[in-house]
Amino acid sequence: MISPADDLPAGDRPAVAARSEGRHRVVIVGGGFGGLEAVTGLAGTPVSITLIDRRNHHLFQPLLYQVATASLAPSEIAWPIRYLVRGRPEVTTMLANVVGVDANARRVLLDDGRALPYDTLILATGARHAYFGHDEWETFAPGLKTLEDATTVRRRILLAFEAAESVTDPRRRAALLTFVIIGAGPTGVELAGTIAELARVTLPPDFRNIDTRTARVILIEAGPRVLAGFAENLSAYAHRSLERLGVEVELNQPVSECSSDRVVFGGRGVEARTIIWAAGVRASPAAEWLGAPADRAGRIMVLPDLTVPGRPEIFAIGDTVTIAGPDGHPVPGIAPAAKQQGRYVARVIKSRLRGDTTPHPFRYRHAGSLATIGKRLAVIDFGRFKLRGALAWWIWGFAHIYFLIGLRNRLSVVLNWLWIHTRDQRSARLITRGQQSADRSPPE
Amino acid sequence: MISPADDLPAGDRPAVAARSEGRHRVVIVGGGFGGLEAVTGLAGTPVSITLIDRRNHHLFQPLLYQVATASLAPSEIAWPIRYLVRGRPEVTTMLANVVGVDANARRVLLDDGRALPYDTLILATGARHAYFGHDEWETFAPGLKTLEDATTVRRRILLAFEAAESVTDPRRRAALLTFVIIGAGPTGVELAGTIAELARVTLPPDFRNIDTRTARVILIEAGPRVLAGFAENLSAYAHRSLERLGVEVELNQPVSECSSDRVVFGGRGVEARTIIWAAGVRASPAAEWLGAPADRAGRIMVLPDLTVPGRPEIFAIGDTVTIAGPDGHPVPGIAPAAKQQGRYVARVIKSRLRGDTTPHPFRYRHAGSLATIGKRLAVIDFGRFKLRGALAWWIWGFAHIYFLIGLRNRLSVVLNWLWIHTRDQRSARLITRGQQSADRSPPE
Repeated sequence: MISPADDLPAGDRPAVAARSEGRHRVVIVGGGFGGLEAVTGLAGTPVSITLIDRRNHHLFQPLLYQVATASLAPSEIAWPIRYLVRGRPEVTTMLANVVGVDANARRVLLDDGRALPYDTLILATGARHAYFGHDEWETFAPGLKTLEDATTVRRRILLAFEAAESVTDPRRRAALLTFVIIGAGPTGVELAGTIAELARVTLPPDFRNIDTRTARVILIEAGPRVLAGFAENLSAYAHRSLERLGVEVELNQPVSECSSDRVVFGGRGVEARTIIWAAGVRASPAAEWLGAPADRAGRIMVLPDLTVPGRPEIFAIGDTVTIAGPDGHPVPGIAPAAKQQGRYVARVIKSRLRGDTTPHPFRYRHAGSLATIGKRLAVIDFGRFKLRGALAWWIWGFAHIYFLIGLRNRLSVVLNWLWIHTRDQRSARLITRGQQSADRSPPE
Repeated sequence: MISPADDLPAGDRPAVAARSEGRHRVVIVGGGFGGLEAVTGLAGTPVSITLIDRRNHHLFQPLLYQVATASLAPSEIAWPIRYLVRGRPEVTTMLANVVGVDANARRVLLDDGRALPYDTLILATGARHAYFGHDEWETFAPGLKTLEDATTVRRRILLAFEAAESVTDPRRRAALLTFVIIGAGPTGVELAGTIAELARVTLPPDFRNIDTRTARVILIEAGPRVLAGFAENLSAYAHRSLERLGVEVELNQPVSECSSDRVVFGGRGVEARTIIWAAGVRASPAAEWLGAPADRAGRIMVLPDLTVPGRPEIFAIGDTVTIAGPDGHPVPGIAPAAKQQGRYVARVIKSRLRGDTTPHPFRYRHAGSLATIGKRLAVIDFGRFKLRGALAWWIWGFAHIYFLIGLRNRLSVVLNWLWIHTRDQRSARLITRGQQSADRSPPE
């Protein structure tokens, strides 16, 4: 990462020169769905915006599992943040690591020692996966939040098949051909279904010593059903569909042990060399930065106008906050919720700058839940309108294409899906390691 | 990588059970252009083939520089080797690391302790970049041979612009905005031209604190001209075109020093944070495995039928060998040469199996040399037919599309090029690190 701190004098954190030209300075931390939507919502407002992210790209997380399963290339679901805001001269993009907030001095603290002053701060820092007090499991059961997570999981899945082709010991071969996914939310279900299709449809003609169709895909869920956020009959449909694809679904089974080649759940052990974590998330440390009230998952308990209690100039949105929806349940940690919050916060800031009263409290509108299980298998829960099967799958596909940014990525994803579903060919079956020996000395 | 050695008893290297069913066993090491062409040439021959590579993918190296410069995604120029030979049941693909050959026992030795018996061996193991006795330079000046090399170079280039946007010290900013490419063969020229276009056309609207058009791109060459393999007037044209793109071309300048932020050439030092090596290659250690006669670059000096002296059952082809072409000059280390050699070796093996006499010695036919410098700038040297400019650029593009494998990749690359040249938008501007903390324990 960038650390130009050695440029700077020792002592207090020096302020970064902001190109504010006297304008109200909005600093947004996080270039995900919420942060970007706030930038969009502030268009035409006389503010100067600094958008900070520790990655250079915005990521379309709903399709991340397709990178992990060799269906899409990383660049098809990611865009340079700078590029997305290139037409907005008042927006400055910073690739930097935020390590804290000095709320009294109104400064965002960077890991290189610099501090960035703000008049209004929007924290949209997202979440990472959580291992419920078992952080040591991360080594054995990586989760899926970043592009690197996805290529790591992809490498593990593909290497497991390669290794199974090489070994002769039947027990080790079986362990290599056992894929365990922990957590049966949308990501877990989508991963399990796609790995099953990979093993049963895509890979069989390519191997000589193993029959990849014998691979076991086990989806473990601590709760009583898959896709708990959906209506019960859709859960049941998803469950049946997974089983038809050959996935073993294990409900009411909390995982009690994870190691490099074994998972223990419900008192039983399964030997598996590939374990993927899709069970829980923990918010970014934004609550800790502020000493703000937070729930058990570390999410800031924001006020109805999405500000942090006692800090009306600090908003927090997306996966890093918790707030009740109109039905009393917490607003779910999904892209549409983050976007609605980003849009709302932009509206509040505009009102304040105009001197208007704050608009109505944030009100989440649930558009619906979508999940795909496999080819022509999906479920859609729009509340009163529920759908499953082939039509749901087509709607799922069109909705995701629609929400991708840019025509090129849309065409490119359509092209890949066409090949996957008409030719059983997945384009991104690459085993790569990003870190090269030549990379010991990055430019900064 | 795969190391199932702990499955195996200690002692001698156990033989891998080959699915030969009494057939003549051909082992091919290397799934590059030469190795794959040998597989293709052996179709319909009663042999069993084992194709070993330490990577799971075949790589279209001529376009690798486009991955390094954020123009193409890795999966657009790479294919799983297994997938390419899926229709050939007699071909077994192995992801494994070859560490030697026991030529007397006719076995290929793997790093996991196993040994693979062969009747005929084809070594198509390629080359890596060479630092002429300065291996320590690799850390500062990575070369470009693998997908990981390319994403490493891509990350360095993009991070340099990001860091330049952050720093305030003008001297450090200048060093960050200086890109040095060492070696002015086709790869060096293509890299220099594309980085210049990136800085001058693609990136300017995305940055606020720096003018990326001020970036320096310096192409250093020890010899007297760029593209030494081309006719002199084409070299001169390429030189002029590079300068028109803003590249500083430094000829007759051997590099004497490389460090993390400095290159010294011709007695002068330049501060640069991004240095890329495109100057020289060294053959794989295949010659060492066999104790075979080799030239200074480690290339096996094969006999006219491409066998290793004294070992008629061992062929070596591609970048790992040297052999004189019809004009007396060595056959160049390019894809068409490797393919011709792979095809020739398949023909020799077929003749031998039929009991025929060996065909004529290998005769290289030079189809021509192509290099692109930038948008609508390319040179083509077909011997008597020489071409430069826009038409050459279109021919270059069509030729590369033609030689890509599969319709999907062709469409996908065309799509990207369309966007690059009509919208100045490069799709793969991702800064990623492949190695995750979660990746400490790969499945094997």
